[in-house]
Amino acid sequence: MPSDLLVTGISQLVTPPASIGAVHGVRMRELDIIADAAIAISHGRIDWVGARTSWNGEAREQIDLGGRAVVPGLVDPHTHALWGGDRLQDFEARSSGLGYEEILAAGGGIRSTIQQTTRRSSEELIALTLPRVQALLRSGATTIEIKTGYGASPQVELTMLETIHALDQLTPAAIMATLLVHLPPPSDREEYLQQMTGFVMFEAGRLGYVRAVDVFIEREAWSPEEARRIFTAAGNQRIPARAHVDQFHAIGGVEMAVEFGARSVDHLEASGAAQIASIAASSTVAVVLPGVTLHLGIPAAPGRTLIDAGAAVAVGTDLNPGSSPLFSTQMAMALSVRINGLTPSEALTAATVNAADVLGLTDRGRLHRMQRADFLVLDSSDWRDVVYTMGASPVARIFIAGREVVA
Amino acid sequence: MPSDLLVTGISQLVTPPASIGAVHGVRMRELDIIADAAIAISHGRIDWVGARTSWNGEAREQIDLGGRAVVPGLVDPHTHALWGGDRLQDFEARSSGLGYEEILAAGGGIRSTIQQTTRRSSEELIALTLPRVQALLRSGATTIEIKTGYGASPQVELTMLETIHALDQLTPAAIMATLLVHLPPPSDREEYLQQMTGFVMFEAGRLGYVRAVDVFIEREAWSPEEARRIFTAAGNQRIPARAHVDQFHAIGGVEMAVEFGARSVDHLEASGAAQIASIAASSTVAVVLPGVTLHLGIPAAPGRTLIDAGAAVAVGTDLNPGSSPLFSTQMAMALSVRINGLTPSEALTAATVNAADVLGLTDRGRLHRMQRADFLVLDSSDWRDVVYTMGASPVARIFIAGREVVA
Repeated sequence: MPSDLLVTGISQLVTPPASIGAVHGVRMRELDIIADAAIAISHGRIDWVGARTSWNGEAREQIDLGGRAVVPGLVDPHTHALWGGDRLQDFEARSSGLGYEEILAAGGGIRSTIQQTTRRSSEELIALTLPRVQALLRSGATTIEIKTGYGASPQVELTMLETIHALDQLTPAAIMATLLVHLPPPSDREEYLQQMTGFVMFEAGRLGYVRAVDVFIEREAWSPEEARRIFTAAGNQRIPARAHVDQFHAIGGVEMAVEFGARSVDHLEASGAAQIASIAASSTVAVVLPGVTLHLGIPAAPGRTLIDAGAAVAVGTDLNPGSSPLFSTQMAMALSVRINGLTPSEALTAATVNAADVLGLTDRGRLHRMQRADFLVLDSSDWRDVVYTMGASPVARIFIAGREVVA
Repeated sequence: MPSDLLVTGISQLVTPPASIGAVHGVRMRELDIIADAAIAISHGRIDWVGARTSWNGEAREQIDLGGRAVVPGLVDPHTHALWGGDRLQDFEARSSGLGYEEILAAGGGIRSTIQQTTRRSSEELIALTLPRVQALLRSGATTIEIKTGYGASPQVELTMLETIHALDQLTPAAIMATLLVHLPPPSDREEYLQQMTGFVMFEAGRLGYVRAVDVFIEREAWSPEEARRIFTAAGNQRIPARAHVDQFHAIGGVEMAVEFGARSVDHLEASGAAQIASIAASSTVAVVLPGVTLHLGIPAAPGRTLIDAGAAVAVGTDLNPGSSPLFSTQMAMALSVRINGLTPSEALTAATVNAADVLGLTDRGRLHRMQRADFLVLDSSDWRDVVYTMGASPVARIFIAGREVVA
């Protein structure tokens, strides 16, 4: 049977090799690079991929890219793209010397965003969030995770899950919703925890589309023990665990999350040898977020050391108004080389197949038969330009599920 | 007489205050912010600027921006945007541990770019450079400096000056040409110096459009004494001096350039207290280039300390293939806050009026009567978004000499 579409004129088709799940350690450097390649697509999935001269099928339609490199669509596994208000005042204050944690402790920072987000309607939040999602898509992200966490009450958090899910229908990018248990309320911490582990988790399970439950483990937020209670409740609903850990202080979050079998541990700016060893010995993916290091001036997560120790590393923007106003998944990948010490090929693996694994997605992040036909056509014949370029888009065309999209 | 155009619906009109030349020290924080403003324009220049309600003139045409912030067009005072070939191999090598200077000393780095640029025709170089210029323009740069320096001989350098000047007619942005005396040739160093200070400088003077003569002062390049000979020859042609100094080693370039009265000293990553004091006591502008720090991982230029000491600081991309593949002047400005410690208002001053001063331009960089009507309309009602945003463009519309341009 003929394929729907044959794409030719591909100077280099670049993909992480076939394997199951995330790619660990120095194997992250191994990319398959096919020169003068072709891809055949049917029903939004890849039928066939290989050297142009080896193709002997038929296709109803054909596109010639004229000698450009093709890479998998990027996956952004960590964003807080749904917010109201702005943090421009914090930005000015910090540039005059005030610390992020000082602002947080003084009731500014995240708490002001929670206030301003909660006061917005679902429609308003969608109108604010869509342009951010489009910016990430334009940069090459074909799958984008968005977390809740700016809702002032458990009920608002549930509404925001639905708002995030509603975005999926409004953009060509695939939107994945995560429930983030972010900051404890100023009072009634235990009651809040009971609600989150109780009716909120039950409802999140019932919704069916919640990819993970994430917890912010930090001195000013939740303890590892509290996070374990949340993860246990999530597990009862068959929702995977993820955690914000070691952003400012290593307080045992990594060790607990890894032991629990979390899908990912994110941030890791304050992680040391013990945390790195614990991640490297597990199947939990380490998510590095270089935008935070750049914006806040905190230490860089030890990407290089994690990979050398055998860990699987992914990269994301952490797009949020307070600690990472980085509106480009491509730039996050480019920064992971400059800030976290990855090589260009490791960075591509981190932003594709490993990021997909964080979201529990096995159908994307590689360009192989039966995978979703999510791919980027670069403005270059050399794939490395997608990691090299800073401040402009090296992405010329974007295909999602086999269809070109206008970003 | 009625103005050609009245622009209204400006939530905030933001500009460095009126003054002569570059703005020094903590005065860089002082911006004029006019709420609900209007600008009247005739013959490409600003006729009038002020609060909307104070306008009582007439205009043939009117544009309502619907409540968006307006800032001056950015000026990029330091780029090497004209090059052939690529440095992707160097990028991969460095990410695996090799140093920039090691690559340079081994004959890679700049030398390979010189080879690949020299072999291209003027037409080919224009075709390669225009998209880079368009990327800078899209990011908000309405005036862009481009240096020679990748020509393998004095004669080729002269041809490249003409190629750069030809670009001015091919983009709406204003292109300013600088003659850069970059690397000494592998042999015949003295002969090369005599040619550069002789017929090349004479010809550069005759061309009339060369904004400055720049010298790369560094262990692997030219000594301060050699640079002084070049500056003296430039001075005889009434061409201002600029210098690449202290990028890797402080070898006296700052002190010599400041004493000579150079317009700018650029880089400064290795500058210490003595160099900072020398600049602060002069009218020479310090140009910081955060893209290099990000890409090469070298120390940040001491922007904060320079301003606190009373220096005038400007910021540029340093766009070039080896040490700063940063295709956004807006991002360079945004990075100067995160990397060099500027405040948002200082960063705007650095990227507008101070950058214009580096190029000897007094007719742009501020939004005042009689200045060129070069301005940016942001995608926001708050001007701070233009410094805050990373990885996407906060610029919605671009006006150059009073006309909207498509970037």
